[in-house]
Amino acid sequence: MSGYDLVRFFDGSTGWIWAAPQSQIYPMLRRMEQAGLISGDEEARGPRLTRTVYSVTPKGHGELVAWLGVAHDAAPPRDPFMVQALNFDMIDAGDAAAVLEAFIAEQEKAAAEAEAHRDRLLRRDTALLKERLTRRDPEDHERIARLKAHVFDGIARVARVRAEWAREGQRLLEE
Amino acid sequence: MSGYDLVRFFDGSTGWIWAAPQSQIYPMLRRMEQAGLISGDEEARGPRLTRTVYSVTPKGHGELVAWLGVAHDAAPPRDPFMVQALNFDMIDAGDAAAVLEAFIAEQEKAAAEAEAHRDRLLRRDTALLKERLTRRDPEDHERIARLKAHVFDGIARVARVRAEWAREGQRLLEE
Repeated sequence: MSGYDLVRFFDGSTGWIWAAPQSQIYPMLRRMEQAGLISGDEEARGPRLTRTVYSVTPKGHGELVAWLGVAHDAAPPRDPFMVQALNFDMIDAGDAAAVLEAFIAEQEKAAAEAEAHRDRLLRRDTALLKERLTRRDPEDHERIARLKAHVFDGIARVARVRAEWAREGQRLLEE
Repeated sequence: MSGYDLVRFFDGSTGWIWAAPQSQIYPMLRRMEQAGLISGDEEARGPRLTRTVYSVTPKGHGELVAWLGVAHDAAPPRDPFMVQALNFDMIDAGDAAAVLEAFIAEQEKAAAEAEAHRDRLLRRDTALLKERLTRRDPEDHERIARLKAHVFDGIARVARVRAEWAREGQRLLEE
């Protein structure tokens, strides 16, 4: 993958799980290359242009697999929306209900997107999954697709629960 | 509140919503004072010691209320656990199940803590809520307590859904 491929990658479905602004991708690629986790190859692109295509080194693959296989502490919570909700008693009930309305719309959009991506994964119809499956035993394809789809199913369910919670909040505000 | 009070405040229930390491609190207090959002008063503490007690200025209160009353974009997602779960097909199923087991324990602990705090709020039995209610119309006390309890109820429900999702993931890994 080139840096440009990665920018598109983080703009796609991966961005729902890990946002990576373009400004961070190139410096991170250089740091990872210096650490020996990835290696870059110059590739011709037309008569005068080249681009750098990165691949994961055995060392990088080993560190990734080691990280994947052990539990890590949860990230410290930083949810500005919850700070807002916890102080709704300080503002007009109508304003608070409007903040919840925007939150509901955002959560329902996120749920619908995650559900659509879950279904694409179950159909094995994403470029990333197709590429990964070319290197895996066909006997495992169904299981791999279901494991990945399950992650997006979880994202969707959390978003649906949040939307439902916000609707209850709107009812509480009306009391 | 003094800086020390704030450190204890973020170590308590607020830390579940917004983690603030001690190292960030004092510089932030200075920045907020420079911006005129809070003001500090020296207060004697024993014969030789003083401490700075901060209070919110009218300007700070105005900015807080303005921020509370409008919807903001959601924070970009950055969930390392989801990155792990999305790549469980790269590791041993037993290791992946153990990562999920630790996640389940963490989510169930978070849910139980949030439920206990929700119930304390409904009983109006937290120092912060008691202090806030002294400055509010007694007719509104019930509503304010219910609104705040509802936030922790939402946190608990999301944690329960995540734990249930992780248990399903363990069953998928066994297939």
